[in-house]
Amino acid sequence: MINIIADWFRNITFLQILDFIGTFAFAISGIRLASAKRFDWFGAYVVGAATAIGGGTLRDVMLDVPVFWMHDGFYLSCTGLALLWVILLRKHLINMHNTFFLFDAIGLALFTVVGIQKTLDCGLPIWVGIVMGTMTGAAGGVIRDVLINEVPLIFRQEIYAMACVVGGLAFGLCYMIGLPTIVTHLTCGALVFLTRVLAVKYQICLPTLKSEDDIE
Amino acid sequence: MINIIADWFRNITFLQILDFIGTFAFAISGIRLASAKRFDWFGAYVVGAATAIGGGTLRDVMLDVPVFWMHDGFYLSCTGLALLWVILLRKHLINMHNTFFLFDAIGLALFTVVGIQKTLDCGLPIWVGIVMGTMTGAAGGVIRDVLINEVPLIFRQEIYAMACVVGGLAFGLCYMIGLPTIVTHLTCGALVFLTRVLAVKYQICLPTLKSEDDIE
Amino acid sequence: MINIIADWFRNITFLQILDFIGTFAFAISGIRLASAKRFDWFGAYVVGAATAIGGGTLRDVMLDVPVFWMHDGFYLSCTGLALLWVILLRKHLINMHNTFFLFDAIGLALFTVVGIQKTLDCGLPIWVGIVMGTMTGAAGGVIRDVLINEVPLIFRQEIYAMACVVGGLAFGLCYMIGLPTIVTHLTCGALVFLTRVLAVKYQICLPTLKSEDDIE
Repeated sequence: MINIIADWFRNITFLQILDFIGTFAFAISGIRLASAKRFDWFGAYVVGAATAIGGGTLRDVMLDVPVFWMHDGFYLSCTGLALLWVILLRKHLINMHNTFFLFDAIGLALFTVVGIQKTLDCGLPIWVGIVMGTMTGAAGGVIRDVLINEVPLIFRQEIYAMACVVGGLAFGLCYMIGLPTIVTHLTCGALVFLTRVLAVKYQICLPTLKSEDDIE
Repeated sequence: MINIIADWFRNITFLQILDFIGTFAFAISGIRLASAKRFDWFGAYVVGAATAIGGGTLRDVMLDVPVFWMHDGFYLSCTGLALLWVILLRKHLINMHNTFFLFDAIGLALFTVVGIQKTLDCGLPIWVGIVMGTMTGAAGGVIRDVLINEVPLIFRQEIYAMACVVGGLAFGLCYMIGLPTIVTHLTCGALVFLTRVLAVKYQICLPTLKSEDDIE
Repeated sequence: MINIIADWFRNITFLQILDFIGTFAFAISGIRLASAKRFDWFGAYVVGAATAIGGGTLRDVMLDVPVFWMHDGFYLSCTGLALLWVILLRKHLINMHNTFFLFDAIGLALFTVVGIQKTLDCGLPIWVGIVMGTMTGAAGGVIRDVLINEVPLIFRQEIYAMACVVGGLAFGLCYMIGLPTIVTHLTCGALVFLTRVLAVKYQICLPTLKSEDDIE
């Protein structure tokens, strides 16, 4: 038994750690917003799961490939762990604000890279990859906000999904000049992460569309 | 002509009667909530249909199998009948409250069993089946509430989707000890139905997540 | 270079012009509603794109065929152009109200025809085609309203989606009596367009379902 667990730990890759961090942070964000709306545990779990796996599910359905979380119990377990975490440690969640922000940015970066690569593996062009990478990273948050009946935050907040686009364009550039996959992935991920962190640090927002009512 | 209709009635199975009852009750629930929002007949029909077939559609798209209602006119006709029913008999709907509640619970039970079995038939593990069964039973109500722009009821109400999970776990147990399919299905369906009925009778709710704002 | 562009223009068909008009008008409608909610440029682009390609994406995913916009950059470019248009010319948008209304009706007609034909090409019966045609034309607007967190307009407004159904029934009739495809398409498209224009001109609405609360 201990051998199996030891083996299991030995086989964990750096990528899986990042995947755990990202999924966990996304799920936490969904569960916290659900709790602010007085959802019960089941509702909170669903919103957490939708935030964590919604973008990738949308991507896989559109690409017509098997939906990723059905073939690996990791993602739904991870959401369960996040629910447990919020139930047990909710008093300390506010103090972990910065940690979760960084975890969320790591998730955003990883999910973007995964989404682009998976799209390219389907034989689709790089511009579809950038759209799909952005969807993998950001659509979960939109589904979350639809489920809790709020206007999607990422459409009005500091730069979030645009960080995926910036990283995606870098991916496209690296891809076209033929850099090795690992370099391409790292460049893209680093750029998504940095763009997001800098955007929040300096409160960089995209311009807002002026409503027609504002024009006198 | 009469022969055809007589033949048709002879060929109706018990399962089809349950399917009709469930679809009808789900559609009625969507149409009534749409009417409370002053939707027109078309809007009410769409919300009714989304409630009745939304969960199964989501399941079939994710499992990458043909969407069930496209291959059997029964489901959309049934929604049409439900619309007619609400238009003609709306004054009496309140008196039928208990009947519709029981019909809804029957639908929930049947859809859960169908969803799990269909997932297993795709060669996926039982835990995916439980997720998919719950989605088949409960996602239609979530789509309904998103369309009428309300916070999904099932995330805050008495136990609803958790009844599917309870039945699903029983399905998994029967499945693993190798009971005959019919016993497995009946056990699962009965448990979903009973859990739902008892939850409403005794107003059993899941615990609510305390919001962080509540903690002083 | 000039040769390529000249060639490109020569190859534009009448259908592509209609497609551009419809996509553009749908995207504009999404972007304008997003701007009324103070979305940023990215949010407005996403809502515009969801309005323009959401219905067709839903259709393709349900029919299990490749999603149309992934194989032709036209649709997302067209949405980008619509965003630029709103940013630059928003002061004049109100004066273009009638033009956009007609463009929107053209889009509705074209998308309905395309949706029905694509469904028939998948070997599905005509009634599924009518459902899918209506979805292609009208679901984008529903997704738009869900994203901006409003009750979907088309469920309460003048006849919109019903115009697709009217055109769809005409398509079915022409199809069953075996008229040439081009006649079937034109009849369907013309009926959708006319129904929509007349419905708005004479403010024709479907009956509203009376809420049960209204009945004393």
